[in-house]
Amino acid sequence: MNDWKELAAQLRIDSIRCTTRAGSGHPTSAMSAADLMAVLLSKYLRYDWADPAAPNNDRLIFSKGHACPLLYAMYKAAGAITDDELTTLREFGSRLQGHPNPHVLPYVDVATGSLGQGLPIGVGMAINGRYVDKLPYRTWVLLGDSEMAEGSNWEAFDKAQYYKLDRLIGILDMNRLGQRGPTDLGWDAADYAARARSFGWRAIELDGHDLEAIDRAYAEALAAKDKPTLLVAKTIKGKGYSAVENKDGWHGKAFDEDQAREAIAELGGERSSTVSTARPEAARPAVPPDAKPLELPAYKVGGEEATRKAYGDALVAVGAHRPDLVALDGEVSNSTHTDEFKKAYPDRFFEMFIAEQQLVSASVGLAVLGKRVVASTFAAFFTRALDQIRMASLSNATIHLVGSHCGVSIGQDGPSQMGLEDLAMMRAVCGSTVLYPCDANQTAVLVDAMVDLPGITFLRTTREKTPIIYPPGEQFPVGGSRVVKRSDEDQVAVIAAGVTLHEALKAHESLKSEGVLIRVVDAYSVKPIDRETPHQAARDTDGRLVVVEDHWFEGGLGDAVLDAFAGARIDGLDVVKLAVRDMPGSGEPAKLLHAAGIDADCIIKAVKSLL
Amino acid sequence: MNDWKELAAQLRIDSIRCTTRAGSGHPTSAMSAADLMAVLLSKYLRYDWADPAAPNNDRLIFSKGHACPLLYAMYKAAGAITDDELTTLREFGSRLQGHPNPHVLPYVDVATGSLGQGLPIGVGMAINGRYVDKLPYRTWVLLGDSEMAEGSNWEAFDKAQYYKLDRLIGILDMNRLGQRGPTDLGWDAADYAARARSFGWRAIELDGHDLEAIDRAYAEALAAKDKPTLLVAKTIKGKGYSAVENKDGWHGKAFDEDQAREAIAELGGERSSTVSTARPEAARPAVPPDAKPLELPAYKVGGEEATRKAYGDALVAVGAHRPDLVALDGEVSNSTHTDEFKKAYPDRFFEMFIAEQQLVSASVGLAVLGKRVVASTFAAFFTRALDQIRMASLSNATIHLVGSHCGVSIGQDGPSQMGLEDLAMMRAVCGSTVLYPCDANQTAVLVDAMVDLPGITFLRTTREKTPIIYPPGEQFPVGGSRVVKRSDEDQVAVIAAGVTLHEALKAHESLKSEGVLIRVVDAYSVKPIDRETPHQAARDTDGRLVVVEDHWFEGGLGDAVLDAFAGARIDGLDVVKLAVRDMPGSGEPAKLLHAAGIDADCIIKAVKSLL
Repeated sequence: MNDWKELAAQLRIDSIRCTTRAGSGHPTSAMSAADLMAVLLSKYLRYDWADPAAPNNDRLIFSKGHACPLLYAMYKAAGAITDDELTTLREFGSRLQGHPNPHVLPYVDVATGSLGQGLPIGVGMAINGRYVDKLPYRTWVLLGDSEMAEGSNWEAFDKAQYYKLDRLIGILDMNRLGQRGPTDLGWDAADYAARARSFGWRAIELDGHDLEAIDRAYAEALAAKDKPTLLVAKTIKGKGYSAVENKDGWHGKAFDEDQAREAIAELGGERSSTVSTARPEAARPAVPPDAKPLELPAYKVGGEEATRKAYGDALVAVGAHRPDLVALDGEVSNSTHTDEFKKAYPDRFFEMFIAEQQLVSASVGLAVLGKRVVASTFAAFFTRALDQIRMASLSNATIHLVGSHCGVSIGQDGPSQMGLEDLAMMRAVCGSTVLYPCDANQTAVLVDAMVDLPGITFLRTTREKTPIIYPPGEQFPVGGSRVVKRSDEDQVAVIAAGVTLHEALKAHESLKSEGVLIRVVDAYSVKPIDRETPHQAARDTDGRLVVVEDHWFEGGLGDAVLDAFAGARIDGLDVVKLAVRDMPGSGEPAKLLHAAGIDADCIIKAVKSLL
Repeated sequence: MNDWKELAAQLRIDSIRCTTRAGSGHPTSAMSAADLMAVLLSKYLRYDWADPAAPNNDRLIFSKGHACPLLYAMYKAAGAITDDELTTLREFGSRLQGHPNPHVLPYVDVATGSLGQGLPIGVGMAINGRYVDKLPYRTWVLLGDSEMAEGSNWEAFDKAQYYKLDRLIGILDMNRLGQRGPTDLGWDAADYAARARSFGWRAIELDGHDLEAIDRAYAEALAAKDKPTLLVAKTIKGKGYSAVENKDGWHGKAFDEDQAREAIAELGGERSSTVSTARPEAARPAVPPDAKPLELPAYKVGGEEATRKAYGDALVAVGAHRPDLVALDGEVSNSTHTDEFKKAYPDRFFEMFIAEQQLVSASVGLAVLGKRVVASTFAAFFTRALDQIRMASLSNATIHLVGSHCGVSIGQDGPSQMGLEDLAMMRAVCGSTVLYPCDANQTAVLVDAMVDLPGITFLRTTREKTPIIYPPGEQFPVGGSRVVKRSDEDQVAVIAAGVTLHEALKAHESLKSEGVLIRVVDAYSVKPIDRETPHQAARDTDGRLVVVEDHWFEGGLGDAVLDAFAGARIDGLDVVKLAVRDMPGSGEPAKLLHAAGIDADCIIKAVKSLL
């Protein structure tokens, strides 16, 4: 008890010291949770600081990432970082950034700072523990009360009960005050508890500054069976420094030197003790099945198949070859065709229902614990999770996203279901790879390549069947492109991908009959884009290019190709971009492609405009 | 009672007829809700079909947009559309698209089809009724059970109780079956009801095929005071056609001709009666205050101010001039500076707490009912709501989004808080406008211009203070750019915006002292981008351009400028794009700008590389 009190004071003091030194940061948000974390660190957390990647380590996520001075103070108390390093908080080049960042700190599994993402990622980690690695580690998530307004948290509550994640413990630091004033529910612990219970959780209300009560609550949480637990801890923002306790206007403000001195004195003065953390049991993850040789599906040239179907077929093959592969879907697996993987490997498939944010966050949780993860939904619906995708990149996570039903070519279901901004959105993710196959054999090869790539990858698939033009086994390197039609007399080059590649081929046939030869380039790797092929095409055609895509005009293939011309001198360039500009409607795919100005007829017109 | 039964049969039959004729669609999802809608249409809905925009009309949102055959059948029963039109469902050019689309149908207020958006928009509509227009209309939202997994719905539940929206009624069509099988909660009405109650709603469980029970439930819902109501209606998917009732595998499938004949026979045969809808009371919206003359804030050239602060100041001025303007924020109004508007016009400000999806959806609900809406949060956090923004454009809504804290220049808080993909994301919204001011006076002018623009607009503001370089009152037309430095001897043109414009000016000074003259262009209108100025710059500098932005490399200003060179022949172009390529950290803004390669030093280096 007395040790806890001492430790809590040290954590508060260190949170104050480092933020005051930095001149910015969130000391009061750290101080409210210090008692909760003191008891956790010294009694309940099982963690090998010498081996942060140990598979049976408990996981601790600061979902309220702005409270990271407290997290860093815990690292110091555990002996993982020095006091000198602690005082580098927020300096350029320091590992101790304004919000926790796993790019630089090995004890941080995932980046936080965009609220409402810690618990959803924790669900993925707890799924890994219960169903994949089959290890008894616990996932602890420190939650702020403001972030309980984020719907993403309720997606997590729902999935955690569905998957019976009894080793997932949410610790709600209910300090009543958000950034700009009181939260919606204030100190209404009963309300938070009722919400959690209605979502199938066990909830425990407690005084978050009563060390014995905290101890009892953790013990009770660990005794839960088949239910996750939420601790609703009533706390005081700024606890420990009476001048700021429970006062509005102190969010995200460091104390000045005098205030810091006063606060530290009130907390009993600086101290620097070390706490020993319990080690996890030495347990090994469940052994996955043996890898089988890769046997990708093969499709006969001249036939036709939807690339989404080829993706499903390929994922089954890749799943046999890569026993660490798991797949998730947002209740549309019979459309994305991830259901084929589910049928083949039911134990390695996780249904996230219609909760795209959770889909991505659970993927991140599984990914950072070493799983190879594919997640699918309609391309349009990944827009629901762009914040999670952005943060996944900041978490250094490798996840493979597959978006089906791209573009106007989906037809009758209409624009709400059409992925038309997915290329723009996925290109603008740091370090991402964006692939867009046009036929079934190409899809199979790219699915296999994708699951081996680091970072955030995105594969765009098409609803409708498309002609099979490449023989099985052809290679399509990421970052490359394929010249499908070429001659020494090409007057214009058409760069296309996916459905528009087939429109370009139709245009090629038709123009050839009129004596006009065009080059046709398949830009299946939208990012990284092949720079050399467009340059060569420009040189060969006196700069006459048409880029055509089933996507909005901005940010997609057209912009990627233009980008390939930056960074080098170009003498003579005349690019026509064909893309979707006006809101499409419902109808037959062919009519919609024409109305959008991206079918063979429109390509022919564009080619002729350049002659 | 008998009339209801007849009407419900007609609604089912018409849902079957039009989908069978189209060969696709969702008849079974329509059939489960037909009884609920029959009672609503003939007794409770108050709507003037001759005047869909009448301010006191009830609002009806099919959040489960795929059930729209039922909605269209209701339109027919109400006499708003003909049976001939009904049978054009899903045809190219028909107003009856695969999901409801207000671009073409005046009775549809907002587009649905991306699940979990109807109720959040309904919250905005109900806020408008209770707090802005002060009208007694009701907002009815038909919800699917699958979409209850979307966190966005729980953001809506939370805000609806907070704002005491007792004229908001959710009708949950709990038919147990989603697209690919059973839903998470199945027919567990008590669970849904408990969740709603824990979020402060009244919940009523009922048999959704018992017409009297439906009648009673609606009556009870209307008697609610200060609480929204959720009807949890147990229904059967495909109800009315025994061959498919409650069977998996019938989602999104039209019946074939034989099945349709059989189903219609089972339902008692085709009929075509018309139901008269109750008219709303003739009530007028509350009269807003008188408009005052516009007096934009003015800042002295040579001083400095953050553009986010100038936005807040300008919004107060614009708010006086435009009494129909309302503002919303996601619990960061003291950072975005929308709090200045809140202080000036507390009745016209709505706090959405940390729920960015709800922030955008409530904005849409207010906007489609005629309000001029500005919504703000950190630029980075609008990524949380891209799906809602995309759908807002499909809803033909005009909303003005203001994203603060863009780019690495925010400094110490680190990458989780940096808007680095916002330009890419907002450019890729159909019909959007994207503005990015560099100084306070320019910001004020652009805020005023923005609130008059149609569609989705986005204004990007900067955390740090920037120098004031433009006198008050200068004009900055949308779609234009400003040449800040030019001479007849310019060797290179630098195109910049926001913080990088000031870096470009520093580079200009430094290079000038070395005898190198550069043009500096302020591209404050990122979309539409000014095409002529870059072309002129290219002609004047032998094609030597540097584009520099505080944004990821993809999809932002650099791509927009390159885009300006598509569609016309260019002879000689050498563009260097400077943008953020690697994951930034925390630190002083100046250090982060340098590390990202976008400060004056880096611009100078890029300019020299072109000489």
